[in-house]
Amino acid sequence: MNFCSVCGHPVERKIPPLDHLPRYVCPNCATIHYENPRIVAGTLPLRGNQILLCRRAIAPRIGYWTLPAGFMECNESTLEAAMRETWEEAGARVRIDALHALLDVPHIHQVHLFYRATLLDLDWVPGAETLEIRLFPLSCLPWDELAFPTVRRALEYLLRGEATALSPQGTTRYPTVPLIETLPPRSARP
Amino acid sequence: MNFCSVCGHPVERKIPPLDHLPRYVCPNCATIHYENPRIVAGTLPLRGNQILLCRRAIAPRIGYWTLPAGFMECNESTLEAAMRETWEEAGARVRIDALHALLDVPHIHQVHLFYRATLLDLDWVPGAETLEIRLFPLSCLPWDELAFPTVRRALEYLLRGEATALSPQGTTRYPTVPLIETLPPRSARP
Ligand SMILES: [Zn+2]
Ligand SMILES: [Zn+2]
Repeated sequence: MNFCSVCGHPVERKIPPLDHLPRYVCPNCATIHYENPRIVAGTLPLRGNQILLCRRAIAPRIGYWTLPAGFMECNESTLEAAMRETWEEAGARVRIDALHALLDVPHIHQVHLFYRATLLDLDWVPGAETLEIRLFPLSCLPWDELAFPTVRRALEYLLRGEATALSPQGTTRYPTVPLIETLPPRSARP
Repeated sequence: MNFCSVCGHPVERKIPPLDHLPRYVCPNCATIHYENPRIVAGTLPLRGNQILLCRRAIAPRIGYWTLPAGFMECNESTLEAAMRETWEEAGARVRIDALHALLDVPHIHQVHLFYRATLLDLDWVPGAETLEIRLFPLSCLPWDELAFPTVRRALEYLLRGEATALSPQGTTRYPTVPLIETLPPRSARP
């Protein structure tokens, strides 16, 4: 940030009164320009023991598999954002079932929210940001070709829930408590 | 937004290629200025059957009671933001126990996250944004003087969990599944 978006004057970097962090402040109109983390919302679109994944057509991580997800817009809820991204990236309609994971990614100023969802039909079409869509059996996920660490964690948590909570009837049961976790930068990972 | 924060040129409002919503776009440097919802993070600081509330010293809702909460900063997780706000507004140290509520407030472009927490000491001090701090018995909350609808929903959900899940030993048990809800504008409320 170089210029005030309100009045166009060059901004200064300083700690405002009663604050504790440096902010971009306009010496002309006194506006303080706060910067805040952004929310990425997405779904785990399930159909029985299969899950829909999208192969990315855009950077970063072109050609890798991801869950449908993207930046939340203003004037929508996190559920609406997750459903919209599933529609835009995969042309797939889903019913939201539960919050699955809240993954903090502070080093890139993002919070990733994934909802477990049920695919309502099989008429999906790859969107402009998607090369290919595939239904993967949960037992056969493309672990070596996943796009992002948060996608990996969300899928690992899904399988862990499935493995530990198989009902006597063989019905798949998923975790009721969402995964809450902070993901460190790649360099800090074991 | 009137001016580009990167180059200082006046911005235009239009729908960029491959997009579906109008954005502020700079005709000089081509930067697209996205606007995103902000996260408010806070805690329900509990001590047995009592909860800490703060009486607000600042607008909006001066003099009304609230849970310690505020805008999440970059470079922190949602848990860190919740603990920091509890420290700044109440001088209180807490241990985070669980995600309690994720409340979408799309008409003001916010997502409110409340964590259930345990007060670690009783040495609280009102911060600059707080007039007064009090430990309220859960049976005697100031329902008519609460600052915000999300605070009310978070407290209602706490009590509902407490009421339905009292263990045989009389130990208080709280909900394991977080409340996920979208709050409508005041004019649309029943
Ligand atoms: Zn200015
Ligand atoms: Zn520009």
